[in-house]
This record gives sequence, structure tokens and C-alpha cells, in this order.
Amino acid sequence: MVSHYPENVGILAIEMYFPKRVSISSTTYSPPSAVPSHLRGLEGRALKIGPANTFGVWLGHACATQPPSCPLTFGNNTFPLTAQYVEQIHMEKFDRVSEGKYTAGLGQTKMAFVDDREDIHSICMTSVSKLLEKYNIAHTDIGRLEVGTETIIDKSKSVKSTLMQLFAAHGNTEIEGVDTTNACYGGTNAFLNAVNWIESSSWDGRYAMVVAGDFAIYAQGSARPTSGAGAVAMLLGKDAPIVVERGLRGTHMEHAWDFYKPDLSSEYPTVDGRLSNICYLRAFDNCYNRYMKRLAAKEDIEFPSLDNIDHFVFHSPYTKLVQKSFGRASFNDFKNNPEDPRWVGLEHFRDISPEDALTNRDLEKAFLSNVKAAHAKKVEPTLFASRQIGNMYTASVWACLASLISEVPSEDLVREASAFSVLFT
Amino acid sequence: MVSHYPENVGILAIEMYFPKRVSISSTTYSPPSAVPSHLRGLEGRALKIGPANTFGVWLGHACATQPPSCPLTFGNNTFPLTAQYVEQIHMEKFDRVSEGKYTAGLGQTKMAFVDDREDIHSICMTSVSKLLEKYNIAHTDIGRLEVGTETIIDKSKSVKSTLMQLFAAHGNTEIEGVDTTNACYGGTNAFLNAVNWIESSSWDGRYAMVVAGDFAIYAQGSARPTSGAGAVAMLLGKDAPIVVERGLRGTHMEHAWDFYKPDLSSEYPTVDGRLSNICYLRAFDNCYNRYMKRLAAKEDIEFPSLDNIDHFVFHSPYTKLVQKSFGRASFNDFKNNPEDPRWVGLEHFRDISPEDALTNRDLEKAFLSNVKAAHAKKVEPTLFASRQIGNMYTASVWACLASLISEVPSEDLVREASAFSVLFT
Repeated sequence: MVSHYPENVGILAIEMYFPKRVSISSTTYSPPSAVPSHLRGLEGRALKIGPANTFGVWLGHACATQPPSCPLTFGNNTFPLTAQYVEQIHMEKFDRVSEGKYTAGLGQTKMAFVDDREDIHSICMTSVSKLLEKYNIAHTDIGRLEVGTETIIDKSKSVKSTLMQLFAAHGNTEIEGVDTTNACYGGTNAFLNAVNWIESSSWDGRYAMVVAGDFAIYAQGSARPTSGAGAVAMLLGKDAPIVVERGLRGTHMEHAWDFYKPDLSSEYPTVDGRLSNICYLRAFDNCYNRYMKRLAAKEDIEFPSLDNIDHFVFHSPYTKLVQKSFGRASFNDFKNNPEDPRWVGLEHFRDISPEDALTNRDLEKAFLSNVKAAHAKKVEPTLFASRQIGNMYTASVWACLASLISEVPSEDLVREASAFSVLFT
Repeated sequence: MVSHYPENVGILAIEMYFPKRVSISSTTYSPPSAVPSHLRGLEGRALKIGPANTFGVWLGHACATQPPSCPLTFGNNTFPLTAQYVEQIHMEKFDRVSEGKYTAGLGQTKMAFVDDREDIHSICMTSVSKLLEKYNIAHTDIGRLEVGTETIIDKSKSVKSTLMQLFAAHGNTEIEGVDTTNACYGGTNAFLNAVNWIESSSWDGRYAMVVAGDFAIYAQGSARPTSGAGAVAMLLGKDAPIVVERGLRGTHMEHAWDFYKPDLSSEYPTVDGRLSNICYLRAFDNCYNRYMKRLAAKEDIEFPSLDNIDHFVFHSPYTKLVQKSFGRASFNDFKNNPEDPRWVGLEHFRDISPEDALTNRDLEKAFLSNVKAAHAKKVEPTLFASRQIGNMYTASVWACLASLISEVPSEDLVREASAFSVLFT
């Protein structure tokens, strides 16, 4: 059946902000008179565009069956994060924890942070303006702009409204979309809303932009080494090289008190780390099984497994949790087809209860070992930025997608990666 | 040309929460063990369903050309807001302002408020659960739920995630959408996202729900009498009696410091009332002119005017501002066709600058007088709830739509009202 939706709706360009020390040029500081005096500092920051602290890629218009053109690589230690981070080996010493706890244990090498010259407005503005500028996109060609963030510095005024300064200067005040929030899922929600817009009667033919950005900052304690900061802006339209699959994605949402920010005067979340990991894994199980069931129906596969998917792109709070989740893919494949001879030696996990399966160490170890080779090929290339920056909440999954595009030669990206963004609720 | 989108996408049911004193039955208080002890009170509130403090209407499935079936009226003083409000005449005395300042000056008769037994979670949950219950909608038939609010009590965890309790209890954890925020526009954004979802390839055939809710609370001073509180839940799908027009709507967004909430520890916004009114009127001008231009092109009208529209539904901070905005419709008609003989005597306003036109009292008076009869017919029926409750931020425009449906006999609603939701940015 021929689809009546625009063809190949997806991502045309990605621009990522990462923390790097920058100086504010006095020439860029020009607060408009409408700004109340006590906010002029904020305004000055918001107008500042970081000179070089983004990287990105214009994917070009291409048919989905052609590999994207990918001129930029930031692998092989050429990643331009040169200034503003803490080495996790130093963090281990500072926190007086055992050697390797953050590096091997969490799978993180560096942790980026911003200073007081940046806020959520400035990093989103940097990403958006750099994307438009580098790839020569007219401000008037944007018809929708939505921001996903949980870095709330105003309870009413959206980051999107602040970004309107960039567009109003070019006479474009007709841009739909505002901010959307639910922990790390805001960026995914903004992205899906943008795709829906392009496929709906609301679409006026212009591009959609999505920005996902956050400062992940934790109080002193076990969660602090999983801090980070970043923002990713994306340009969406039709005829994109990275195409969003139709009819396959799975969603899982539930009410939980694993991660929330009830203290409005604090930058720190309230976290139950153990519960949060369990929520993450349970959400993965549900999303994976829902996706696989739909894939099986669509492509007529009796027992779909992770072998059917080339790359897995996760939300990465820290890379070790991603690795563990990937082990769950294998466990779910086992549960869905336990008679397969490949599972010889794992039969004793057949009758484990779903809740026990989420915390059983032997099970985790067995299935992690099972996916070791697959992880190196299907997941590791997505973790480049995450490992060096840390958590970016809403931006994390998109930074992983950017890493994949950068790390894997275009000709090998024959099939779109399956993006998985955990729903922390 | 035949559209390939689902037919008649729009509103099937509306359920509105308004503040009314309720008691918590001890039988409904059952905090799950997963809730941290310091949050159990919140949980208890969130689980409470108000017994009678909603009203609403099931519009039924009908072709858009048929009038909606509308069994409920709350006009003629039968509006069931019986308990929790302040009479504006008492407020005038309490504030020692001149008689009529709030009643005639702002156009408000009552101001509703909630006590400490309610929060944004509980009023949204009441609206959603009442809608599902009253109209016998299965929890599993909801595929999307999005919340528009600027009443932020957690910087990360969405109201939507809390509402998932209602659905998880029925085995439905696959519901897309989270919270969306930008002042009063969040409800409109959530609504448009839901419509786009139904028209996109993401749609799985289930209903979408939208909840818009807020507590509007101001510090002592001139804005306080414009406080209020309310929430509106809506059920969206195809074959709806209230259909969203395609290809006509106009949007205007700009960066402004008229209304924002930078003090995260306070419930009060920071407001520049005069600037806010100017922003409102300018946004109206832009949206009205964009809409009219598209209407003219679509229906081949040389000089479209407010005569082409049966009803105007506004976001209502207070009803007097709505009235003033409606006067702007007339002024814009005048600007777009100044030679029309109906404008005899108003020629001296032809050359007024756009900025002066936003604040000129003579102009305001002249065009208000011009639309007096039209206001009574096209706008007044929409203001019933707003006048008695006050501002509801994101819920306001939808409460006005509910009022219109309730106040005007179905057979007279031959054409959908033109909804206008100002973008406070």
C-alpha cells in the first residue's frame, strides 16, 4: 500500500553543544530595553553564541536507501572536548572510592560541566543558531520548534520563547511548538511531536527543529559521577537520510518515584538509584518486546531477536547501564524462544519471575556475557559522546545517535538504528 | 481533493474541574508502599477523586455538519460552582478599591480558589477520571495523553506520569505524550499535538486525551483579582462533532518579559500587566490577520471580516481583556478594508502607527462601541465560566469553549467556533 504521508520523514542535520570554556565578547552583549534590569545579565548570556563549542553533521537530502553523507568524524580521540570536564579517575581519587569504580564500574571516562556563563537558554540557543548558520538554513524556513528539557529555570516561560529571538530578528514569528518535560523523555516527546507535525495536515512544508538539552547535576554522593551537560539540535523534514520507522515503536510509561525534582530551589534531583535502574530495565523490556512483536508481524519473522537489529541507540545515564540493558535484549530473546539451542546452559533461568529477573546478578552476568560481541558492534559506537560527557538527560539518546553516525562509516549504516529512549516516570 | 487524513478529527467530550470544597474519604487513601514516606500525603491527595466538582458534556459521534448533542446546560445561574470562591464585590471592599473596579472594570463576578487538599495532580486526575467514568471510556482505549500546565510542583516528573496510575491499573502503560509548558499556551500546544498525532502515522486508532489545568495565583496587588483555578480534560478522535479546521490557523510567538515565574519557590508569577495586555493584543492582531488571510484564500472572500465568523473563543485572563481584543478584530477589519462605508467617522484612525494603535484609548473606545452587538452574540456566551471562576491559564480557552457549547443551543452551533488562544511568551 502506498503511504499518503510525506516520504522519508526524519533527521536532516544534528548539531550538538558540549561544554567548553568560552569568553563573552562585549560586542554580543546588547540587552534590549524591554528586558527588566535585574534580568539583563541573563539576557546577555542568552544572546551569547559560543564560538566553537558545537560539533555536528549535515546529513544532506538523500533517499533512505542511500547511506548518509557524513563528513565529520569525532572518533579516535579527535572529539573536540578539550576544556571543561573532570577526568573520572580524578573523581575517583577525590571521592576516595576504589580505583575503577567510576571508570570501569560506571563505564565513564570524563564528566563535562558548565560554568555560570551558561544556562539552559544559552546552550539551546547555541545549538539552534549553529545548526542554522553552519548549514545555511533560512530562519524563515522553520515552521516548528520544540524544546525537550528538565532543566527548569522558569516555571512558566519556555526556553522555546527565548529562542524566538533568533527567528523574530528574521521576521518569523509563526513557529508552533513550546517546551515539553518528563525527565529524560522530553527530547523524545519533542522529536515525536515534530515527526507527527510533518505527517499531519498542520504541516506547512517548512522544516521542524527539535532541541533537547539539560544540565545533569547531582548532590554529593553515589550519583554525582553520573553528572554531565549537553544539548542536541536537530533539523527534521522529508527526504531525510535518517528515517523514522512507521508503526513499530514501543512505549512504556509508569508512575514511579525513582527520579524527580520536588525541591524547586535546588538543581539536584531526588534519586533512588536502585529503583531507577529497575525502572529503566523494566521500561526497556516492555519497549523491546512491543517493538519486536510489531517487527515480527511486519516482516513475518517467527522469533525476532537482537540479530534483526543493526544498532541499538539508548538513553545513556552512564554507559554501564546501557550495557546491562543490552543484556536484557538477549534475556528477552531467550524468554520469547527458550527452546532455541543457542540457550543451552541457561535453562535454569526459564522459570525466574519477572521481578526477580530484574535484579538477579547471575542472570545479568550470563546474558551480558552472551551479548559481548554484539555489544561491541551494535552498541559501543553509540556511546562515544556519552562516555566522555556524562548524562545529558533529554539530549542523551540523541548524542548517542550522533556518536553512531560519526563513529560508523556511512556505508555500513545500511539500515537505520533502532532508537530506544527510556521513559523515566 | 479528497483528504487522506482521518475525517472530522476533533473533540468528542469535555470534562471540566472547578474548585469546590470536598472531603477526603478515608477509604480512598491508600498510599502504595513504593511512595517515600515524606510524599504520602501528596499521594493520598493525588489518588482522591472529587465527588461532584466537575461538569462536562459528551458530544457523541456525529458528522461535523450535524449539531452536537448537548444534554448539559450550566447557564442561567445553574452553574454548580457553589462553594469555593470569592465574590468580586467583596474583594473590591477588602482591597479598598473603588466600587466596580473588579466587577465592571475587569468583567469578573467571582474568583474560584482551591484549598490545600488539591494540587495540579489531583485536579487533572479528577478531570481525566471523571471523563472516562461518566462516558464509559475504557482506559485501554486511550493511546495518547498530554498535559498542558504551568503549575509546576516538580521540575522533572510530569503530571502525565502521575496520571498513568489510572491507566496502569487497567493494564495500559503504552500511552504517548507528556507535559508541555509555555504560560497559557501549554493546553493549546497539547491539543494541537494530539490532533497531529491522530493525523500522523503514529496513530494507532485509539483516542487521544488532553488535560489543561492551572492554579492562577497572584501576589497582593492589582493582578490578584484575576486569580482563578480550573482544569479541562478533553477526549479527541475522528468523527467528532467539534472539528478542528485544517490549514487556517494562525500562530504568533515572541520573546517577552510580560509574564514569567523566575522565583521557583513562589506560586506567584512576575507580571508586567500593561506589557502583558499589549502582548496579548499584538498576538491577537497577528493571529487574526493570519487566519483571515487564509480564510480569504480558501473561501475566496475579498475582504474577510469578523462577520465571517460565528463565534470567537479566547483565552480569558479576565473577560474585559477579551472584550477589548474583540474590538481589535474590528480595528483589523478596518485596516484591511478602510474604504468600506461602514467605517465612516473613523477615518482619522487610518494613519495611526501599529504601536500607538495598541494603547490609544480613543481607538479602543471607538471600535469597542462598533462591536457591541457582535460581542453579545459571538463572544459573551463563551465567557460564562471564565467570569465566575477567573483565569485558569492553560485551561481558560477550553473552559470558554465548554461555556459556548453549554450556553448556545446546539442547533445554532452550525459552524465551529474559531478558537483563539493567545501566546503569552
